[in-house]
Amino acid sequence: MKLGIVILAAGKGTRMRSALPKVLHPLAGRPLIRHVIDAAHALGAVQICCVYGHGGELVPTTLAAAGCIWVEQTERLGTGHAVLQAMPALAAMNRVLILYGDVPLIEPETLNRLVADSAHTALGVLTLRLPDPTGYGRIVRDKHGRVLRIVEQKDASEAELEINEVNTGIIVADRRALNDWLHQIDNKNAQGEYYLTDVIGIATAAGVQVATTAPEMPEEVAGVNDRLQLAQLERYHQRRLAESLLLGGTSIADPARIDIRGELICERDVTLDVNLICEGRVRLGANVRVGPNCVLKDCDIGADTEILANCLIEGAKIGVGARIGPFARLRPDADIGDRCHIGNFVEVKKSRVAEASKINHLSYIGDTDIGSHVNVGAGTITCNYDGVNKHRTAIGDRAFIGSNTALVAPVDVGAGATIGAGSVITRAAPADQLTLTRAAQVTIEGWQRPVKLKPTPPDSQD
Amino acid sequence: MKLGIVILAAGKGTRMRSALPKVLHPLAGRPLIRHVIDAAHALGAVQICCVYGHGGELVPTTLAAAGCIWVEQTERLGTGHAVLQAMPALAAMNRVLILYGDVPLIEPETLNRLVADSAHTALGVLTLRLPDPTGYGRIVRDKHGRVLRIVEQKDASEAELEINEVNTGIIVADRRALNDWLHQIDNKNAQGEYYLTDVIGIATAAGVQVATTAPEMPEEVAGVNDRLQLAQLERYHQRRLAESLLLGGTSIADPARIDIRGELICERDVTLDVNLICEGRVRLGANVRVGPNCVLKDCDIGADTEILANCLIEGAKIGVGARIGPFARLRPDADIGDRCHIGNFVEVKKSRVAEASKINHLSYIGDTDIGSHVNVGAGTITCNYDGVNKHRTAIGDRAFIGSNTALVAPVDVGAGATIGAGSVITRAAPADQLTLTRAAQVTIEGWQRPVKLKPTPPDSQD
Amino acid sequence: MKLGIVILAAGKGTRMRSALPKVLHPLAGRPLIRHVIDAAHALGAVQICCVYGHGGELVPTTLAAAGCIWVEQTERLGTGHAVLQAMPALAAMNRVLILYGDVPLIEPETLNRLVADSAHTALGVLTLRLPDPTGYGRIVRDKHGRVLRIVEQKDASEAELEINEVNTGIIVADRRALNDWLHQIDNKNAQGEYYLTDVIGIATAAGVQVATTAPEMPEEVAGVNDRLQLAQLERYHQRRLAESLLLGGTSIADPARIDIRGELICERDVTLDVNLICEGRVRLGANVRVGPNCVLKDCDIGADTEILANCLIEGAKIGVGARIGPFARLRPDADIGDRCHIGNFVEVKKSRVAEASKINHLSYIGDTDIGSHVNVGAGTITCNYDGVNKHRTAIGDRAFIGSNTALVAPVDVGAGATIGAGSVITRAAPADQLTLTRAAQVTIEGWQRPVKLKPTPPDSQD
Repeated sequence: MKLGIVILAAGKGTRMRSALPKVLHPLAGRPLIRHVIDAAHALGAVQICCVYGHGGELVPTTLAAAGCIWVEQTERLGTGHAVLQAMPALAAMNRVLILYGDVPLIEPETLNRLVADSAHTALGVLTLRLPDPTGYGRIVRDKHGRVLRIVEQKDASEAELEINEVNTGIIVADRRALNDWLHQIDNKNAQGEYYLTDVIGIATAAGVQVATTAPEMPEEVAGVNDRLQLAQLERYHQRRLAESLLLGGTSIADPARIDIRGELICERDVTLDVNLICEGRVRLGANVRVGPNCVLKDCDIGADTEILANCLIEGAKIGVGARIGPFARLRPDADIGDRCHIGNFVEVKKSRVAEASKINHLSYIGDTDIGSHVNVGAGTITCNYDGVNKHRTAIGDRAFIGSNTALVAPVDVGAGATIGAGSVITRAAPADQLTLTRAAQVTIEGWQRPVKLKPTPPDSQD
Repeated sequence: MKLGIVILAAGKGTRMRSALPKVLHPLAGRPLIRHVIDAAHALGAVQICCVYGHGGELVPTTLAAAGCIWVEQTERLGTGHAVLQAMPALAAMNRVLILYGDVPLIEPETLNRLVADSAHTALGVLTLRLPDPTGYGRIVRDKHGRVLRIVEQKDASEAELEINEVNTGIIVADRRALNDWLHQIDNKNAQGEYYLTDVIGIATAAGVQVATTAPEMPEEVAGVNDRLQLAQLERYHQRRLAESLLLGGTSIADPARIDIRGELICERDVTLDVNLICEGRVRLGANVRVGPNCVLKDCDIGADTEILANCLIEGAKIGVGARIGPFARLRPDADIGDRCHIGNFVEVKKSRVAEASKINHLSYIGDTDIGSHVNVGAGTITCNYDGVNKHRTAIGDRAFIGSNTALVAPVDVGAGATIGAGSVITRAAPADQLTLTRAAQVTIEGWQRPVKLKPTPPDSQD
Repeated sequence: MKLGIVILAAGKGTRMRSALPKVLHPLAGRPLIRHVIDAAHALGAVQICCVYGHGGELVPTTLAAAGCIWVEQTERLGTGHAVLQAMPALAAMNRVLILYGDVPLIEPETLNRLVADSAHTALGVLTLRLPDPTGYGRIVRDKHGRVLRIVEQKDASEAELEINEVNTGIIVADRRALNDWLHQIDNKNAQGEYYLTDVIGIATAAGVQVATTAPEMPEEVAGVNDRLQLAQLERYHQRRLAESLLLGGTSIADPARIDIRGELICERDVTLDVNLICEGRVRLGANVRVGPNCVLKDCDIGADTEILANCLIEGAKIGVGARIGPFARLRPDADIGDRCHIGNFVEVKKSRVAEASKINHLSYIGDTDIGSHVNVGAGTITCNYDGVNKHRTAIGDRAFIGSNTALVAPVDVGAGATIGAGSVITRAAPADQLTLTRAAQVTIEGWQRPVKLKPTPPDSQD
């Protein structure tokens, strides 16, 4: 069976009040439609055809690498018309499944059941029972439980209004039959649009027995029409991700305060404190502890490492048994070795720090190679930028960099070298020696402290 | 019609367990009673008279500019007595509306309906249907639905206890009639107090037909008696503010993790990550992105600017296309130009930074004027304070300040000047030249590293 | 009456997916079983005997000081068998109460009622009415309401399945009777285990009238089987702690965003902003305000002090009227005097700062004694570590330390001394004098700025 999938993404999304097409708004860090495309791929679809609307070229541009065929619906003439635009691209398919770019949380498992449940007939519909079905199209069945038709809210009789099984809009059909039915839809309605929903009535009128399947959770078929609905789905999704991590053996201090916008892989006995944000691909080794209010993006953190509060780590690799933070910022290409300590108010970028080295306080380390067992004193700055070029600093094993030192790159500090506090090092410092720059300490006789020139401004904090 | 409003604010608030009068406790950054006064002004009240209690002088002092008349209730003899204290101040009014300083979320729209619904009669009461009315005074109606009286919980018959429509205490009345009724209230009850509620029975006994109106939401009439109730109303209110922003087109990562304590104006396509706190008046231009855990207070941020994680911005102005943070602190009178970068562990106060300049790391910039396209190196400190006076620093366009530099104000760095790393600049640095202070780099021959004097304390982090 | 308590802690906890025994997982910062032991002590138990499982030696090791007897259940043969292991240790008791190491939130008040309610008979059972009792053992009573037996879900008749009163597993019994009953339990069931529950049927068969008592809240008897359940109990517990603080007179901006992992004592009118984490023992004096995103651990903060946003304070003492932060980190043995200011990006450890001194920006102060009314300029570093030893710095009253200064310990700065900006102070600086190290400021004639060596890497932030 060759399954083709149509993803409708041509809606205007007016209620988003955004310059960004609705289906590109992110949920868990990915565009809404990307979730649907990923579900489609997970189903093993042979062909995925997305229909975008006039002016929505940014959608195919953004998702050019997503493995879809893109078809423009030049005029917004309704969902039936939109699906029809996709049919030529799916001419080699046996079955066609129709999804929605703004219904992001549909589960592949649900769709697999829908496809399987309807294998024996020409049409399957995903339906849902709702405690309050007001506003939805109801599934009208005969006394044998066979689907007769869908009746919209405004056309429903009093008895039909009592029906709580509703249409989700997600259907799977025989490709040829669907094509025929789509051509039979008319636009004789208030909006003058061709509604995909009409194929259900056309099919049953033709004697087709409609199979139905229900999703596991109602949120799977929830659509996003405004940013409030988007935020609600985001929280639902994040809560589900947290529950999945918890059941898998990761401790999370508050499942309502974690955001995973990408892929988080946790090995055994990882502990995550409140307000963690993960973006991109993050791997945490066994026993890693992450403190409160951290942001981890595209990073790999070794076993037994502790990330203290308020750290931002992006594009970095950290070894095992290290201690990072609090208030540390690791930027792309920071490669921190085993058992290193990176302390508060320290920034590291494009630098390699070998094992057991320490940069504990108030430092900027950029474009630097640091050996093992190095101690970088508080207030150390690598001066890597001369205004136009970046230069590298090299610090050998066991070096000791005194506090408040500026290392003016390109410069080498030898293994075992000691740099005196407050130095500005512009030339190579030899191994195992003390190197420094230092003016003599003088005390000025008879010096008077400044006197008040004017009333102190009311700025007590200076 | 001249509308006068009485706001009762004389309650002791014992359950708040606070030295601060209850009605001054803040909700969304404003005192409880300020919300009520603002609603009163929104109604177009001609006169607003607040009744405060003995010992509560801090209330009128705090709200001296709120446009109200303040009347002290010297003895706490009940709500009826309290309203009576206000009546002389409202002698020129036609109608009197009675509100409560500890019922902060009442909506002007609801009050407008109450006033309109009761325009034809001498008394209107705001009533509410509750799933569980236990404890509240019930609205007893005759078979025609006319209000007969209010019966308190303890006096209610079994049938009356089934009534779920309750009195909110908010009433509007003809001023003269109210004055008469208030004089008819007695204090023959367990507390020995004069209850405002009694006017309803007095009015109906006199043949007055009582109009009733219901609020949109029950939280509008929820009172604050303790800090738990206050916290619950705060969260309800914040949730509503977040929903309003979302529907207006602002993306909010988690509507349960945002606090708006003032006025937040967002232009199109603003994105707010988790744990934002806004205080005072904040304006965010189109496409502004705010990272997690930021506090914005009284600031104006231009379009396309990105505020990264963990920034604190207060009293600052930022241009368009700038990048601020992470871990940046902008203090009052920081004026940051278009396309500037202010990076991590940087503090700026009372300083102007012109367009496209960068202060990327670990710097303190105070009382400084920085031109355009300036690069301020890591670890730069403006020494603006001599112990008694503040002095200004000026840095010209295109200057390059080497890292770890101290600029001892008052001092000028000329346009295009370069300052060598690690310098202490105490006199003007000429334009387009390299200026520095630098001791010679020396290596000490035969120097030995210190040896251990005593066992290292168990403080591995130094 | 001598009460002995058995705490069962021998379960494998497989669903925690952890190397740590389940009962050692923390809730509110304490191991699950520690909560139960503390409840047992609160009851005035004469003897507490904990039964741990094979391989669970870490449990008694961790809780060696908790005042319990530890007994190993070498084979996991069921709860009845486990209790039997404890009986010899309780031979001198009159009554035995059985608790569970993974049921952490049981309230001593509830247990006191259970013990009192069953004082007249040989067996008391804690039972609970649940809206949905599916899966639990039901309490079967006769028409007089006397407990007959407990029927498990799988053995229950249709009528019995309707019973919503369930067994919590917590029982109290006459010690001798319990011992007899335990020996009568058999293991003729699918699991081949000896079930403690069976004692109830054995007792009623012997004519014992079973007393029953209900907990106040169902969460008291909720067990922890996986980390999702643990997280849910954590949030319930934190919510209760927050409500208790609120009702006691502490303002909390969001009761859903506070974590108390230890003991928090707040005096009058303390205000806590969002995302506070307290660990260990924390005392906050009257009118203390704590800003958002702070972590306080084992600290004592004086009245009227303000902790601004994003501070981390551990093992520190702060006086009255001080202002700390934002972005300040106080580490163990920081002792900050009255009215001091510790500002942004400042770290203080093992240091005493006397009253009214200020360290406002970007500094590291370690192993230092600072007098009163001292001003420590931005970028000041105490160089307390020479690579092997720590040394102390002393700064006298009213000293003024210029910005970007390194104080190389051991070193003394005299009272009233001024240190010039950018100095490296290696010897004592005399009182009331200006001391500095300073190279001459020079301007290099004809110097040219660097030219571009190669294309700038796409790293616009340097």
